[in-house]
Amino acid sequence: MRIGELSRRTGVPVPTIKYYVREGMLPAGQLTSPNQASYDDAHERRLRLIRALLDVGGLKVAAIAEILAAVDDPGRTVHDVLGEATSPIVPRYPGGAPDGELEAAREDVRALVKRCGWRVDSEAPAAEALAGALVALGRVGHAAFAAEVLDDYAAAAEQVARVDLAYVGRRAGLDDLVESVVIGTVLGDAVFVSLRRLAHIDGSARAFGGDKTAR
Amino acid sequence: MRIGELSRRTGVPVPTIKYYVREGMLPAGQLTSPNQASYDDAHERRLRLIRALLDVGGLKVAAIAEILAAVDDPGRTVHDVLGEATSPIVPRYPGGAPDGELEAAREDVRALVKRCGWRVDSEAPAAEALAGALVALGRVGHAAFAAEVLDDYAAAAEQVARVDLAYVGRRAGLDDLVESVVIGTVLGDAVFVSLRRLAHIDGSARAFGGDKTAR
Repeated sequence: MRIGELSRRTGVPVPTIKYYVREGMLPAGQLTSPNQASYDDAHERRLRLIRALLDVGGLKVAAIAEILAAVDDPGRTVHDVLGEATSPIVPRYPGGAPDGELEAAREDVRALVKRCGWRVDSEAPAAEALAGALVALGRVGHAAFAAEVLDDYAAAAEQVARVDLAYVGRRAGLDDLVESVVIGTVLGDAVFVSLRRLAHIDGSARAFGGDKTAR
Repeated sequence: MRIGELSRRTGVPVPTIKYYVREGMLPAGQLTSPNQASYDDAHERRLRLIRALLDVGGLKVAAIAEILAAVDDPGRTVHDVLGEATSPIVPRYPGGAPDGELEAAREDVRALVKRCGWRVDSEAPAAEALAGALVALGRVGHAAFAAEVLDDYAAAAEQVARVDLAYVGRRAGLDDLVESVVIGTVLGDAVFVSLRRLAHIDGSARAFGGDKTAR
């Protein structure tokens, strides 16, 4: 198909498609004449993946480019790609937190990983991100949140991860497998976060909904 | 304390503090002379909350301003504030998705809510966000993800939400209660997403880690 048709099918404007090609996120089309190229289903599929990560996953283009480079590199194992797919989780720390607080939070994370028996490098971006979130909780007076709920959160996360990996394991094709990991990782967050909100609203309706004098 | 001390304690630059005051997110200090104001612990606490939502929660300033307006409004119940705290979840749809797909996804969400027995308005932003994520999954060829894992995700989300609400229920002060809801909602996402990644890495290490020929 021509680029105009590709644009129509995916809802991605032509200049944006050209930009993705320049950035190496989308393979160039097959040249059919000096100034015309032809695109196929693989292009359409890749464009849909980019848009899903961008629009629903909320990732930045640079992070998507990094993930796609990992997907496209045949030298990387599924485990490697899973590591790459976590890299857009940039550890975020609350401004002005002294080093001592961060070190204590890292120690909490290491202790949790040990309790869970997880085979995880304690310097993984996700471990740093967790430490950053714990620092933030402490700084707003909710160190107790971490202490009281962390293990229950970890148990639920483990349960979700098990379901994710079983799903990925059922995908047959190998290319498809790696893509599934990326999609499941990023879009799975969006799905879970939405579901947690819905469950909150339900729980709150039961606990506080009828009581207009609760405050 | 003076504004310089407040800035030093929280790591927030003085011009940014003044900006938050102008935007109504932080109460003005007590004027001690025509061009000097004094700030107290409540200001420090509010600034830390703003920074935690911004730096770790990843929310935009406009979304934070909206949430704080709900926190500061004594006329709103806890249940109302929980609704507000979900509003920064802006439903996101993948570009170019025809209406039919979205309508089918909404129907899937309504069916799930019914299966879970949740008392939730099916037009809540979180329900729309979930529908958007399902559309995105379908458009990248993973409609099966939704079909195969959604109920397990919902069960895990319910479990996390129960822990969250129990935590909030243990907070004594009423102001504190509302703030706890906001903090737990936004920072809880960051905590869970990090934990899910760590559990993925663990599961992947067990399943694929040793097998360099997996691709």
